[in-house]
Order: sequence, then C-alpha cells, then structure tokens
Amino acid sequence: MSETSPLGIIAGAGSFPLALARAATAQGRPVFALLLKGIAGPELQAFPHAWIGIGQFGAMVAQARKAGCRDLVLIGSLVRPNLWTTVPDLGGLRVLPDIVRLFRGGDDHLLRGIAGIFERHGFRLLGAHEVAPELLMPEGPLGGVRPTATDLEDIALARGAIAALGPYDVGQGMVIGNRRIVAVEGAEGTDGMLDRCATMLAAGRLKWPRGTGLLVKAPKPGQDRRIDMPAIGPDTVAKAAAAGLKGIAVVAGSTLVVDVEEVIHLADRHGLFVVGVPAGEAP
Amino acid sequence: MSETSPLGIIAGAGSFPLALARAATAQGRPVFALLLKGIAGPELQAFPHAWIGIGQFGAMVAQARKAGCRDLVLIGSLVRPNLWTTVPDLGGLRVLPDIVRLFRGGDDHLLRGIAGIFERHGFRLLGAHEVAPELLMPEGPLGGVRPTATDLEDIALARGAIAALGPYDVGQGMVIGNRRIVAVEGAEGTDGMLDRCATMLAAGRLKWPRGTGLLVKAPKPGQDRRIDMPAIGPDTVAKAAAAGLKGIAVVAGSTLVVDVEEVIHLADRHGLFVVGVPAGEAP
Repeated sequence: MSETSPLGIIAGAGSFPLALARAATAQGRPVFALLLKGIAGPELQAFPHAWIGIGQFGAMVAQARKAGCRDLVLIGSLVRPNLWTTVPDLGGLRVLPDIVRLFRGGDDHLLRGIAGIFERHGFRLLGAHEVAPELLMPEGPLGGVRPTATDLEDIALARGAIAALGPYDVGQGMVIGNRRIVAVEGAEGTDGMLDRCATMLAAGRLKWPRGTGLLVKAPKPGQDRRIDMPAIGPDTVAKAAAAGLKGIAVVAGSTLVVDVEEVIHLADRHGLFVVGVPAGEAP
Repeated sequence: MSETSPLGIIAGAGSFPLALARAATAQGRPVFALLLKGIAGPELQAFPHAWIGIGQFGAMVAQARKAGCRDLVLIGSLVRPNLWTTVPDLGGLRVLPDIVRLFRGGDDHLLRGIAGIFERHGFRLLGAHEVAPELLMPEGPLGGVRPTATDLEDIALARGAIAALGPYDVGQGMVIGNRRIVAVEGAEGTDGMLDRCATMLAAGRLKWPRGTGLLVKAPKPGQDRRIDMPAIGPDTVAKAAAAGLKGIAVVAGSTLVVDVEEVIHLADRHGLFVVGVPAGEAP
C-alpha cells in the first residue's frame, strides 16, 4: 500500500483492533488509534492514540484530522451505544438529528449512517479487509478436522435461513444440527447464542448428543463489509466447544479471523472443524 | 358438537390440556386423557385417563381404542422427545423407522409425521381450536391497553420476518422494538426468549428504556394448526412484563389463549397490551 497518511483506527472491543494495527504497521503504514472510551481495550495505547467518547463525533473528527488521517477503519465489537446515557459533545450535537434517525432502524442502518457521517466530513471509510486482507478467512478447513457431506447440507440450510432474514437486519449467526435450526442470533450476539446452546444442551433441551450441531455465520445480503463484517477468533471456538458443537462454518473472504494459529490449535484440540465455505454457495 | 365418542386428549405440559378437557365437558362431550409420562401435569387425573410413555405408540393406540375414542387432540407443550433415551414399546417399535426419519427435520416435520401415524391407525386428529373455538384469540386488544400506530408497524415488520423464516421451521416468535428485531425464538421457546430479553435489558444490552419492545408470535406459513398452534397465557404476560416489554401481539383465530381473565388482569396491571391482529395482514 503506497498510502503514507496514518491509518485512523476507530477501535471497539476485542482483539481485532490490535491485529489490524499490527498488520498496517507491518506494511510500513503508520497508525493513529481513536480508542472508544468504555469499549476499547488498552492494547492500542502502544500506538499514537486518543481516547474518545462514542458520542463525541466532533472530537473524533478533530483528532483524526490533527493526526493527518485520511482513511478510517471502524473495527472491534461495538456495544450499541445507549442514546439515553450518551452525552454528545458539540460536534456530536450537530449530527444528533442524524443519529436519532439512525437509532430507529437496525444495526445495519446505524452503521451505514455512521459511515456516511464520516464521509461527509471528508474521510474515506475502509473495511479492515481492504487494509489487511490477511485477516480474512480462507476457503476450506483451517485445522485438521473437516465437515462431512451431512454437515455441508446443514451449512447450506442455515445459510438459506440467514439469507431469508437478510432484509430484517437480524440473524447473522445460527446454530443447526440434524437439519434443525435451534438458535438464531439476535442482540445477544454470537457469544450469547453459543452460551445459550451450552445451557440448553446441559438442560437436555437440545435433544442431541455432545458433538452435534454447527455454528454458521454469514454476512447478510447487502451488508456493508466496511462497517459490519462477521468475525471469529479463539473465543468463538472455545464457546462452540463448550456448547458441544462439532464445527464452525463461515463465508471465505467475508469473515475476519483473529489469531488464526490459536483458532487452529483450539479447534484441533477440541476436535472441531472451522471451515470457510465459498461465498456463492447459499441456496 | 353431536359427537358422543370420548375426545382423546393426548396431554403435554402446561394449562391447555385442562382448559380443553373442561371446554369439551361443558359441551357435554366425554373426555379420555392420555397423559404423557414425565411431561403432563396431574390435573387431568380427575378425568378418565391413562399414563403413557411418549415412545409408546402401541399403548397409546390400544388405550384410545379401548376407551372408544375416534377423535384425538394433541395439546400442551411437548418437550421434544430424546431419541437416545426413549424406550419404545412394541407398537412403538413398528413405527420406529418412521420416527427416526421424522427426527431428521424440524419440529413441524416431526409433528406432521406423528399426525400421519395416528391417522394411519384409524383416528381423526383434530386441532384444539376445532373442538373448543372459545380458546382462540379474538381480534383486537384483550385488556384496556392498545397498540399505537408505531407498534403496529413493528408488529408488521416482525410478522414479515416470521414469514421469511417459515420454510426453515424456526422463529415463530420474535421480540422487536423501535423497528429492530432483537430476539428470534429457537429451541429455547417463547419463555426462554423472554427470559433472555429480561437479562439483556438488565445488562444494558437492549439499548432501550423499560416499556419498549413487543413480543410477536405468529404461526409459520403452512403450519399444521392441529399439532402446533401458537399459544399464550398468564405466564407469557408475566415474562413479557419482566422483560420490560410494552405489549404482546398474536394472530387472531390462530393462537390459543389459556385463562383469558387472568391474561387480561395481568396485562392491565402491568400496562401491557395483548392484541389479536388479523391473519391476513403480514407483508
């Protein structure tokens, strides 16, 4: 990448912001981190950075400009900001009517709106995959375990259901086994859904033996990958194992993987497959 | 109803089997209860009855014949039987290949198959609503609180999502607020989904104030109402109130309501609406 302006990383929670900062640095590109107060971890403090409240669009824009950023990446899990407790600064106040409008819709709507606000302020919003394609899930299995033909049928069925829910901005992840979908992801997130499956398995509510069931994640049709990309990491594998699942399927090239070595290690240790399926295969 | 053969009530858990037995009795029709061991409550022991294991199709058929039943109703919540622990009797063994096939699909598939098995044995399987239409949800609000125009938009949106998931045999219930679906019902059931919303609200994961959000339940397209009818009762209202919701919407004429007086009392006490929306209104 020939770009020499610092990459502005608007960092939420989790390991992805650090992985992206390292990838950019390895490419010789400087980084400026905009760390969201109360959400981002402390890891990016090793890079030039500023802490910013999530409602403080004005400060965010001013800091990014002062640092010389032209490109911004939104990365990490964003706890949906609470409109009733966020205190916007002056810049934030100017965009408040926009934000109020955004909150009426689903997450997609919200994130698309935030992207538009940054672009109107003269920044270019990039996806993490555009800056660091090495973070993308490849096609095929990551570790030593592979899905069976029956697993591939379950994966296709779940992807069909995810696609059907696409217009409704919910259900990017599902748990399926024996051709039956038993969990659909909502505001609880992937981790919350996997915890629920662990509880249901322990309570006898999932009538299948341990080692059945798959986590399937896929981007919604029309999802803006710059602002909301499905992601997995070691925690996903650990929680899937705890839920007694036999594998994880995500869409190759449309899913971020953090700490791929640890993902492979954990998947092999638990006997789980982690597979990237081709993007075009959903029914 | 001019039918004088006893109505065979194959009873699962919850209050519906008793409500149906009372409704039939009030019509002058005798009742014979087939109580599912480990699932049905003791209430129907006041009627002529037999306790039957859920895998014991042979005994079920023999008891129903001996009691002179021609019509059967499957009612109450059926914990999905565990294929690995059920010990079928001889009659059950003859239908085992059928049952194994059924277990590969979703709940709809399972229940449709069970209906077919009874019909092949010469019984007529009826829906509770055919025997006791007074148990059906009427159109309009049940108590004193009514949905707003915005609520009706949310209801229509959730019904669209339920219809979209119809082919996938999941998601008969959803929780929606401010045009965003935050929970989709899976194997955890409606109660489990409402408990999850209560937890998410308490944890700040639902970014809305108490008194936002609706439970919407609707039958899946093509759902066989004789064997799987959406249902609500006082517990549904109590759990919706605990989740901070402002209302419950179900499809009039396609939802069973148990203990309607208590539903109205609780809904009014908590300031919730409980509304029956017309069947044809989904987008």
